[in-house]
Amino acid sequence: MTNALYNHLNDCLKKARKTMDFSPTEKTLEYRKRLIEFIKENIEPIEADYHKDIRRINPDGDWRHWQVPPAVAELKQKAREQGLWNLFLPDAELGAGLSTLEYAPLAEVMGHSLLAPEIFNCNAPDTGNMEVLYHFGSAEQKQQWLTPLLAGDIRSVFCMTEPDVASSDATNMQTSIVADGDDVVINGRKWWSTGLGHPDAKFAIVMGLTDVEAAKHQRHSMVIVPLETAGVSVERMLPAFGEYDAPYGHGEVRFDNVRVPKENLIAGLGDGFKIAQGRLGPGRIHHCMRALGAAEKALQLYMQRGQERIAFGRPLLQLGGNMERVADMRIGIDQARLLTFFAAWKIDQVGAMKALAEISAIKVAAPNVLQQVVDETIQLYGGAGMSHDTPLTQLFAVARALRIADGPDAVHRATIAKVELNKYRER
Amino acid sequence: MTNALYNHLNDCLKKARKTMDFSPTEKTLEYRKRLIEFIKENIEPIEADYHKDIRRINPDGDWRHWQVPPAVAELKQKAREQGLWNLFLPDAELGAGLSTLEYAPLAEVMGHSLLAPEIFNCNAPDTGNMEVLYHFGSAEQKQQWLTPLLAGDIRSVFCMTEPDVASSDATNMQTSIVADGDDVVINGRKWWSTGLGHPDAKFAIVMGLTDVEAAKHQRHSMVIVPLETAGVSVERMLPAFGEYDAPYGHGEVRFDNVRVPKENLIAGLGDGFKIAQGRLGPGRIHHCMRALGAAEKALQLYMQRGQERIAFGRPLLQLGGNMERVADMRIGIDQARLLTFFAAWKIDQVGAMKALAEISAIKVAAPNVLQQVVDETIQLYGGAGMSHDTPLTQLFAVARALRIADGPDAVHRATIAKVELNKYRER
Amino acid sequence: MTNALYNHLNDCLKKARKTMDFSPTEKTLEYRKRLIEFIKENIEPIEADYHKDIRRINPDGDWRHWQVPPAVAELKQKAREQGLWNLFLPDAELGAGLSTLEYAPLAEVMGHSLLAPEIFNCNAPDTGNMEVLYHFGSAEQKQQWLTPLLAGDIRSVFCMTEPDVASSDATNMQTSIVADGDDVVINGRKWWSTGLGHPDAKFAIVMGLTDVEAAKHQRHSMVIVPLETAGVSVERMLPAFGEYDAPYGHGEVRFDNVRVPKENLIAGLGDGFKIAQGRLGPGRIHHCMRALGAAEKALQLYMQRGQERIAFGRPLLQLGGNMERVADMRIGIDQARLLTFFAAWKIDQVGAMKALAEISAIKVAAPNVLQQVVDETIQLYGGAGMSHDTPLTQLFAVARALRIADGPDAVHRATIAKVELNKYRER
Amino acid sequence: MTNALYNHLNDCLKKARKTMDFSPTEKTLEYRKRLIEFIKENIEPIEADYHKDIRRINPDGDWRHWQVPPAVAELKQKAREQGLWNLFLPDAELGAGLSTLEYAPLAEVMGHSLLAPEIFNCNAPDTGNMEVLYHFGSAEQKQQWLTPLLAGDIRSVFCMTEPDVASSDATNMQTSIVADGDDVVINGRKWWSTGLGHPDAKFAIVMGLTDVEAAKHQRHSMVIVPLETAGVSVERMLPAFGEYDAPYGHGEVRFDNVRVPKENLIAGLGDGFKIAQGRLGPGRIHHCMRALGAAEKALQLYMQRGQERIAFGRPLLQLGGNMERVADMRIGIDQARLLTFFAAWKIDQVGAMKALAEISAIKVAAPNVLQQVVDETIQLYGGAGMSHDTPLTQLFAVARALRIADGPDAVHRATIAKVELNKYRER
Repeated sequence: MTNALYNHLNDCLKKARKTMDFSPTEKTLEYRKRLIEFIKENIEPIEADYHKDIRRINPDGDWRHWQVPPAVAELKQKAREQGLWNLFLPDAELGAGLSTLEYAPLAEVMGHSLLAPEIFNCNAPDTGNMEVLYHFGSAEQKQQWLTPLLAGDIRSVFCMTEPDVASSDATNMQTSIVADGDDVVINGRKWWSTGLGHPDAKFAIVMGLTDVEAAKHQRHSMVIVPLETAGVSVERMLPAFGEYDAPYGHGEVRFDNVRVPKENLIAGLGDGFKIAQGRLGPGRIHHCMRALGAAEKALQLYMQRGQERIAFGRPLLQLGGNMERVADMRIGIDQARLLTFFAAWKIDQVGAMKALAEISAIKVAAPNVLQQVVDETIQLYGGAGMSHDTPLTQLFAVARALRIADGPDAVHRATIAKVELNKYRER
Repeated sequence: MTNALYNHLNDCLKKARKTMDFSPTEKTLEYRKRLIEFIKENIEPIEADYHKDIRRINPDGDWRHWQVPPAVAELKQKAREQGLWNLFLPDAELGAGLSTLEYAPLAEVMGHSLLAPEIFNCNAPDTGNMEVLYHFGSAEQKQQWLTPLLAGDIRSVFCMTEPDVASSDATNMQTSIVADGDDVVINGRKWWSTGLGHPDAKFAIVMGLTDVEAAKHQRHSMVIVPLETAGVSVERMLPAFGEYDAPYGHGEVRFDNVRVPKENLIAGLGDGFKIAQGRLGPGRIHHCMRALGAAEKALQLYMQRGQERIAFGRPLLQLGGNMERVADMRIGIDQARLLTFFAAWKIDQVGAMKALAEISAIKVAAPNVLQQVVDETIQLYGGAGMSHDTPLTQLFAVARALRIADGPDAVHRATIAKVELNKYRER
Repeated sequence: MTNALYNHLNDCLKKARKTMDFSPTEKTLEYRKRLIEFIKENIEPIEADYHKDIRRINPDGDWRHWQVPPAVAELKQKAREQGLWNLFLPDAELGAGLSTLEYAPLAEVMGHSLLAPEIFNCNAPDTGNMEVLYHFGSAEQKQQWLTPLLAGDIRSVFCMTEPDVASSDATNMQTSIVADGDDVVINGRKWWSTGLGHPDAKFAIVMGLTDVEAAKHQRHSMVIVPLETAGVSVERMLPAFGEYDAPYGHGEVRFDNVRVPKENLIAGLGDGFKIAQGRLGPGRIHHCMRALGAAEKALQLYMQRGQERIAFGRPLLQLGGNMERVADMRIGIDQARLLTFFAAWKIDQVGAMKALAEISAIKVAAPNVLQQVVDETIQLYGGAGMSHDTPLTQLFAVARALRIADGPDAVHRATIAKVELNKYRER
Repeated sequence: MTNALYNHLNDCLKKARKTMDFSPTEKTLEYRKRLIEFIKENIEPIEADYHKDIRRINPDGDWRHWQVPPAVAELKQKAREQGLWNLFLPDAELGAGLSTLEYAPLAEVMGHSLLAPEIFNCNAPDTGNMEVLYHFGSAEQKQQWLTPLLAGDIRSVFCMTEPDVASSDATNMQTSIVADGDDVVINGRKWWSTGLGHPDAKFAIVMGLTDVEAAKHQRHSMVIVPLETAGVSVERMLPAFGEYDAPYGHGEVRFDNVRVPKENLIAGLGDGFKIAQGRLGPGRIHHCMRALGAAEKALQLYMQRGQERIAFGRPLLQLGGNMERVADMRIGIDQARLLTFFAAWKIDQVGAMKALAEISAIKVAAPNVLQQVVDETIQLYGGAGMSHDTPLTQLFAVARALRIADGPDAVHRATIAKVELNKYRER
């Protein structure tokens, strides 16, 4: 009677830890209410225009000319004044002091809107980078880079994936980070570095190979590289399903003998893998909850169109299997949300490293639910669903990219199955 | 930003009700531990032989000769002595005083074994019938029928589905229950009346039509019919995917001018629908949790065979997409379990009538997960999986039947979609 | 521009072979018409009673008492007199002189009925065994075994799968067939030997291991073993999803130092693999076409019930996604049929060994279509679909078994993918 | 024993029509060989650069500045000189005299490349428009519009779908085409008018409502509208999954009291529906075959990447379920191709109106196969698959759009199911 859920729970209870309570705390409920109000009052009314503006002022992939509509800075300022700011950060002073589980419902709410995460300074990859600096950064690093990030004054980039190797296997990584006197020298090429096209992007955290002879999890390092450093060449922005995601972008960047002082290393040489693991746990919760918020948004659009449009004398919802689809979408979203809560709870209880299978499970489940829901909604909207008149193709691109980013489905399925197998081997 | 989960939660919290805590209580954990031990020590060692015996002494569908192996009475006695008895009943004296959510993990444990539920006096349809009598029965009815059921001395039947109409639509029901002087008279035909073949089955609760002119939910009645009453003819047992489920069976039964005293009515004439609704909520949780326990059992069998059998030089688990299948099965089971906890919790908080969509959601999700897991496991076992050398075809029959019983998938999907639609209409 | 279809076609055309004409020939059309009439007039009217009789006279798995209803012999006689006999055999005198492609539509017609294939002496495994003897048997073997099989006077068995090893990998086979003086000696255990329970079963063709050191495809032999030979012990019949398939059965049989004269070897020692390959090609076409006939039968039942049964005021067909299901079932069946025609045509053109990928493709496609169609039809029928009141669970068992028998889906998928990969490697 | 395939075939044979021979004719084989050579020598070498050029010279959706790279005209000229021109047109003089079935394999070959169809003057919507003019146009219309289209000198547009109504139900159409003296006057709004952004687009065939009181299939008309006519306003190009498909585009266009002479009506007032039906049959074959060619292309990319990229020490193809995916993709493509051949053959035999179910079947099957294959291929490529470094997102957009264009999946499923149901009603 193998049952990871209970076995683990038994362990937790024995250690007198918190019970598996998925109800939002008072703090979560209050933040959630305020976020919803803020979004309704300030973001929703301008969102359609925002995206039109974005496409108008940033018509193509030439990031050198990308601009940010002024509304963004105003809304950020307003959100910050209201304390709807850095909610993702567990620190009570710098952030809101929320656990992963407490923050999860707030990430979902932000996921209803493609613009909202930045307004509340809760957007990837800055959140992950802030967490890295918060947990592993030196005092100087915190002052120079974490403080302005927390203030929303600058933006940052995370450089991990590489074009020339299967990056799903991190041991394939080729970019080198090697010490040379008081400096470290970076050589290599990264792509899908999200946010690299943003006018405010100031630095990247780069992961690379330091010592191929070291133990498997001590080969890599992470280093802070200011984007204006000599040898850093942003080569292009990559479209994801035709979306450049201006003014953020997903960039391809070359590092040619890029030299930064050793003080820019996060933790030390060889600590890259350890940092990455810690970074990815809560970040995947955020991604998945935003995906489920997006799925709720798409389902909402499905219901609206399904009631309003008439064909063959009936609302679309009443035709064929559409009501069955509604049921399956609702089941899919609700299941995935509860599973994500479970993973968040487990991260809070025992840390991301012991919650690998659960994190992988939601990383498979949530983006696939979103892709499925969006695909059905596009189908219901017909032509309108494929164009920019709805946010559906953008949401589709989010879902499709998320099935690849932060580890493709196949890698996560392998992790889940390995953990399952270990239950039998341990016995 | 429609979101049933939170909206409902907000309501609950406002009313100062219990939070959504899915961790097992101390009581649940202790019962669970003891159930697992009991099953390991007493049931698992004899189970394979039990099923062989059953097939030997009850070789075909002729229920008149069906016998119960003596081990069953012995194990029941033992379980009762240990207090592992009637755990499903919320009453603290007659049962274990557990909420639906507290009982759910225990139902899952029992679901690992096809025999276990009866041993702990927690098997359908007796559990549902006991609940009906507990909540709606008169003192006399309780004394005469509930007491021996609680003692495990007799068994009972629930007669709902009819062969001649689409019973998925309850308004189709044709069996009549009409008052005639001091009696009520029952006419009609029912089938798939589970447990009807059991030597100890003493009475049935029959649902029928009383007043076709009444308001939609006041047309039906429920009445207790002792099986030896004149006019009750058990016609045959029905195989489900070739399984007669001796010594329980699924029976077809005719009621020809069956006459019982009015005292046998449960609640009163016209109360049938109300009783049915209350009966089905917790019962569906039990079914679904047992189904998930069965799915865990099947996955366990998958892992074992997958490690032990070798083909093309490797364990089956390492071939093709089998590890991916493991991941998908694990995700499917864990998601459905959490969703079932959620539905159980909601029943406990606001009652089954206000948890219709959630109950329908798990009623779709859990049996489909079980069917999928069992189908994959059969495929891995090859010929052995199709025979009686494994419990897999029995588990398959359970899954397949459960997608039809207590409302087919289509009806539950319609309920979920209607509730979803109402969220938009209410606004 | 890799494209197996055209490339192969180009080859065929160059060799001036027949074109890919899927239209039934005049002979096929005429046989088809007569088969349909025969089934309508002679088989359909008695089929429901036949299955009831079968269950009555053969109530359980004890094959020693199994009987064949007298109607079977009468119908066989009638079919034989009408020349609807041995149509599967390409030989113009012994059979009907039909190519694989010409016979395919006739196999489909027979698949509408579970009884029909035997009536026309076209049932597995006798068809495969007759083909083996026809192509590889000695004159004596033909006289002794093929002649009475062709006459429908006896029945035969094919012993391949073994209980103790993953038989999906034929190199796992453990049963030994070794020469000893003028005899060969067989030791081992086989199961899922179809037809072994039949009162008329007289011999088995047994495949076993002769020389583990030989080249991979020359290790095995096939030998004719009369069932009354000393050392042959039929141990039991295996139920497939609860169905014993009396009076045929799927048997488990032990061979303990079974000794038969060398003349019983088919071809010679070490020729087993070669024979098996030839046997499986057309046989898989037959299986798949019968499966598609069964799927048509199930779809027909779906349409009938869907029109007749009313729920919520409408025929079931008009509810939810049922009409969409009809479309998907129709597409699935029609696609799989055309693919099976293609595989049959390719066998006729270049032989089974060069049509491996195509044969594997239909072996995956057709049984899965049947399982899906039957599962949906069961769902529409509700309780009736799970019982023996419809042939649906029998059809389900056929589909489920066929996904395992003659190579499980996984093995066939591996073959298809390997062939696809070779296209790239060859270049 | 309902079986549309055979029943229909019987009919055909009785009428002494051609048999169902799917082998390419000598003409097809020769054209196919020459097309492949042309594509290999002339198109493949420049295709990657062509798409980069297109994006460079047409960086956004502003069609007013769209340009066509000069290579296109050169290649068209070359193709025309070689007689690889207008192959789609059944007319032996103006086209190649090929039947629908004969042309189908050529459409597949062209589908391997996004550029190829135009080079051979076989691209939608011009092909459909040429067919309309060929079959229904007056001599003047042919001279003025068909001749330059056949010469590849101009391009054309087909205006059908409207933004404000569910266009899946053609009776919803609101654009009006009414007679006024010697003119017809067009008012309304159309979108997803493919090719509207092309610099060479000269006219549109517009479908609109003429007489709402007429019999259902006589309400609509089709009229030729030169794009420079007063009142025609091209408002914008619509992106499909982020792709503007420059220099073709999918346009939204307004018709404000647009006045053209009655001579511009195709056939007559009220003939729109009749023309549309004829137009859609072969066109859907072309679409589906191109989709299958694109699926072959994607599978080819899958195999290449799967062999070349290494992760976890093995080629991607050898990881997890990837080889199983190859098998399923191969089965899916081959099944859909054969089904499309069948539909093409039926169109040739009995006309599109009597092949509705078959045309609908492929219209569901082929684009879904393409979407599935492309989705898997994107997943294998990871980031590269989402960018413009591969043609995969363009192919995805083609698949996704095709599930909506020319009738969404739901409408085609409804057609198939209705035809299936009629088989039972007719009896």
